[in-house]
Amino acid sequence: MRIVIAGAGAMGSRFGVMLHHAGNDVVLIDKWREHVEAIKKNGLSANINGQRSTTRMPIFYPDEIASNSTPADLIIVFTKAMQLEDMLQSIKPLLGSETMVLCLLNGLGHEDTLARYVPKKNIVLGITMWTAGLEGPGKVKLFGTGEVELQNIDAEGEKHAKKIVAELRNAGLNGVYSSNVKYSVWRKACVNGTLNSTCTILNANISELGATTEAIPILKAIISEFAAVAAKEHVILDQKEILQHVVETFDPNGIGLHYPSMHQDLIKNNRLTEIDYINGAVARKGAAYGVPTPYCALLTELIHAKEQILKAK
Amino acid sequence: MRIVIAGAGAMGSRFGVMLHHAGNDVVLIDKWREHVEAIKKNGLSANINGQRSTTRMPIFYPDEIASNSTPADLIIVFTKAMQLEDMLQSIKPLLGSETMVLCLLNGLGHEDTLARYVPKKNIVLGITMWTAGLEGPGKVKLFGTGEVELQNIDAEGEKHAKKIVAELRNAGLNGVYSSNVKYSVWRKACVNGTLNSTCTILNANISELGATTEAIPILKAIISEFAAVAAKEHVILDQKEILQHVVETFDPNGIGLHYPSMHQDLIKNNRLTEIDYINGAVARKGAAYGVPTPYCALLTELIHAKEQILKAK
Repeated sequence: MRIVIAGAGAMGSRFGVMLHHAGNDVVLIDKWREHVEAIKKNGLSANINGQRSTTRMPIFYPDEIASNSTPADLIIVFTKAMQLEDMLQSIKPLLGSETMVLCLLNGLGHEDTLARYVPKKNIVLGITMWTAGLEGPGKVKLFGTGEVELQNIDAEGEKHAKKIVAELRNAGLNGVYSSNVKYSVWRKACVNGTLNSTCTILNANISELGATTEAIPILKAIISEFAAVAAKEHVILDQKEILQHVVETFDPNGIGLHYPSMHQDLIKNNRLTEIDYINGAVARKGAAYGVPTPYCALLTELIHAKEQILKAK
Repeated sequence: MRIVIAGAGAMGSRFGVMLHHAGNDVVLIDKWREHVEAIKKNGLSANINGQRSTTRMPIFYPDEIASNSTPADLIIVFTKAMQLEDMLQSIKPLLGSETMVLCLLNGLGHEDTLARYVPKKNIVLGITMWTAGLEGPGKVKLFGTGEVELQNIDAEGEKHAKKIVAELRNAGLNGVYSSNVKYSVWRKACVNGTLNSTCTILNANISELGATTEAIPILKAIISEFAAVAAKEHVILDQKEILQHVVETFDPNGIGLHYPSMHQDLIKNNRLTEIDYINGAVARKGAAYGVPTPYCALLTELIHAKEQILKAK
């Protein structure tokens, strides 16, 4: 299969390497200069569960995609949420009438963006539980195991989604065909919407927030806003299960001492956050549906204010 | 007049010194050990508009007030909002049936606390535009000029309030009898409710917050919650005027580079904040009146979470 990884950061690199090793013709696209140049020069160096290997794969900048490029069989988009639209614009030549697009981005609303570039029958949504880390330009660390849950968004696309599942299984990426990926996407967004924004605004790790008397009331309010908006899209979130799941992450012997990724983006690395696709998406959808979402709205406003105060890029 | 200053920090010291110099018999009460001991030993040292003087006045700890003390003519309470109840409890012996109590604390709801200790006819509410700074234990810096606006909360108390106005004028403290002090108290609380909580949570000065695209929407939402709750108490806030006033403080050539007092309390000095008497009071009153106040509620929760994360005292 001719597979394009659009956004070849840590996670995109994992998928690229594993799909390449399974015999696919994999092309990477990314715009981080040092990373692209390192891979062009030396190949992608991966530490996979302690074993280092180097994989040579073609890598391009988005603006290097020629207008007469051959369309891909499958494009997996792995950009930051706010870079999806730009990426789709750049890779238009790779989008043929039969090109399947698998979107594994965090957050909500990506299918609307995708639908502006890709026929609905070719769009497959998913979430992944794999992890991946960057050690530096051209170097990734791929530990542990995971899974990819996915589903077509249009009934016509079922055969496409199942073909992708098979391809991912073949590469050891544990693809699973989901009967309700919309639920999984909403659930994951809701989980992300609780700790990411709050720990970032409070400059706290998960345990520190969890130890306060305010954590539960705040998280409950956020989850109930996600649930109210999700219900308008015919997704009935299990609020109790989600709260329970989030509360379990408070444990300092588990992941409690970690800072959520939004904190790492904004406070540690001074980067813009994905807030508009998490709490911000709920506030925007809530406004459109006439569902009050003040906690999501204020958290989104505070995160954007903090981005501007810190001059994040 | 026998006047007791209950809470003799910077502002209480200003009132104490000026009322003493006007010939009143002034007694200070405070619980900050170093400050009390310094004043007991050396008197209160004040730098008044550049001129230093020392004033000897009796000063006591709250628990030194003997049960057979002579009631005061006037008690001016100047504690932190959360210390008011404890202070009233301690100074009960000083509260006679004719003792007037003037409350100049920031925030909302103090009249309810006062009414548990003082007959309504003796309660006078006010706000002050004087400023005062602490240079260290027993040393205050009193620059600029100001005013005290006050009013009885009970029709019967008008003569008391006017007597206090006269006493304050006599001491150069520019007392003004207000025809609507409730409006002034709500307006001041609303102004405090905009920048204090937001700048504290964002760790930003006024100009930094003001320069963000999010400042106006957040401030508007907060002001509208204050206004909706105030209306339930028959106070009709001028939201446009308040927003305009707050926006004027963004100017870095004015007070824009300052951090609001709540930021100084929590972030600089690691002290508990008065949030429960500002945004927290609106959230509490809103819940009681059935008026939604989610922005005030979430800001209160975030500030309390931050207090706990920082182990503020």
